[in-house]
Amino acid sequence: MQDAQFHCDMEVRDYECDLQGIVNNARYQHYLEHARHLFLRAHGFDFAELTARGIYLIVTRIEIDYKHPLRAGERFRVHLRLERLTRIRFVFHQEIARLDDGQLIVRARVVTAAMNPQGRPVYPEELERLLAPAVSP
Amino acid sequence: MQDAQFHCDMEVRDYECDLQGIVNNARYQHYLEHARHLFLRAHGFDFAELTARGIYLIVTRIEIDYKHPLRAGERFRVHLRLERLTRIRFVFHQEIARLDDGQLIVRARVVTAAMNPQGRPVYPEELERLLAPAVSP
Amino acid sequence: MQDAQFHCDMEVRDYECDLQGIVNNARYQHYLEHARHLFLRAHGFDFAELTARGIYLIVTRIEIDYKHPLRAGERFRVHLRLERLTRIRFVFHQEIARLDDGQLIVRARVVTAAMNPQGRPVYPEELERLLAPAVSP
Amino acid sequence: MQDAQFHCDMEVRDYECDLQGIVNNARYQHYLEHARHLFLRAHGFDFAELTARGIYLIVTRIEIDYKHPLRAGERFRVHLRLERLTRIRFVFHQEIARLDDGQLIVRARVVTAAMNPQGRPVYPEELERLLAPAVSP
Repeated sequence: MQDAQFHCDMEVRDYECDLQGIVNNARYQHYLEHARHLFLRAHGFDFAELTARGIYLIVTRIEIDYKHPLRAGERFRVHLRLERLTRIRFVFHQEIARLDDGQLIVRARVVTAAMNPQGRPVYPEELERLLAPAVSP
Repeated sequence: MQDAQFHCDMEVRDYECDLQGIVNNARYQHYLEHARHLFLRAHGFDFAELTARGIYLIVTRIEIDYKHPLRAGERFRVHLRLERLTRIRFVFHQEIARLDDGQLIVRARVVTAAMNPQGRPVYPEELERLLAPAVSP
Repeated sequence: MQDAQFHCDMEVRDYECDLQGIVNNARYQHYLEHARHLFLRAHGFDFAELTARGIYLIVTRIEIDYKHPLRAGERFRVHLRLERLTRIRFVFHQEIARLDDGQLIVRARVVTAAMNPQGRPVYPEELERLLAPAVSP
Repeated sequence: MQDAQFHCDMEVRDYECDLQGIVNNARYQHYLEHARHLFLRAHGFDFAELTARGIYLIVTRIEIDYKHPLRAGERFRVHLRLERLTRIRFVFHQEIARLDDGQLIVRARVVTAAMNPQGRPVYPEELERLLAPAVSP
């Protein structure tokens, strides 16, 4: 991913593999989520404090293309780029690539919104700050 | 889901909920997968035997729209409809709805293909039989 | 388990199996926990309400003997018996048996206590009521 | 753990936490297993090759004392010491401690054996070599 804003490295743990000896499809969502949370934390997001203020970051849609499976013990990098979609929706473009040889494993598009407990969109300052550079053309 | 071919019922287990008291996004993939496997088994698919013959059913793409979260203890129904996309790709249309009030929770589109260990498409007889009524007219 | 007070039935889901085609060891803790929660709910425990009152049920020790592995698709029964250990500790005796043939899968002993947020023991009325018959010799 | 033979460091991921904001009890088994597998791999164990030779490492009993919960984002160290119990059984003594302040989180005893597919004990050379120093004197 050429224009990634963030990446983190992980390793497949044996218990994450299924009957066929490969990482179960749902696991990749965990890897992708973990990378997003690390990115947001690195940009000053404090989830506990946001929740206390009644702000929830919600995934509204996810699209994942599975290109190649990961196997036990393989190391991989999760890349991430944030883009504003509309005033209230933003999208994380993410890719997982094997570290060894750069083999693309998964490409994903994760649409997210910030909501209050009543399900109405909210505009937390931290998010506006984070998205500002991401929208400039 | 009006034209569902199959459904099964499940219940949210407490350990499936996350920090916010709702089912973690990745869990829905488990629910959706479990329903597909029950459906295929009900149609005579024997995964162990297929694997022994060198046939793998692979998810190549998944799209999930998250409409409403499930909470601990809630019961839900997973609906499923199978459609042929191309000669080698087929898609499971799936919905999860809360049993209590029918609230739509998740809508998904799961693109799948049958592959041999070399990653080439294969056409297992069981699958052709299953897809035959799904494509007409 | 001859003197079980409660049981519930479940089925192994494919995604719960690991590389060796058997249920991963940690999964049995989920099955055991789910059975305990169903038992407690059946006896009027409302976890959300307990938490709101500042009461946490905490597992302080677990012992599990693994007798035989479960495989994909197998149905099983989780048995449970509650016993008071001391004034503040109680133990769940649990067994998992395959439904088909009664094969013992797992035997467990789960020591539990009720605590307040400061980690001090508390004595919720619901628990005293539940344990009363369990201690009578 | 003063006499640990091996340790590895990990970090709690948000999706590993439950309703109460703490790591779910069953997750610690995953952490403990991952550390054992890293240790065995570091000592030349190749699980795929062992399985191909018909050798399975089986956990027969686990005991876990839960001392203190881990929370989202906390880093921890898993310590490990291997001891021979009998000719065919060996035990992993394990501890999880928070990295920040050394707070003991979990203490575990994991009894293991090597079996062939018929459930008979086997004595793989790699294991004898690994256990040799662990039994003397």
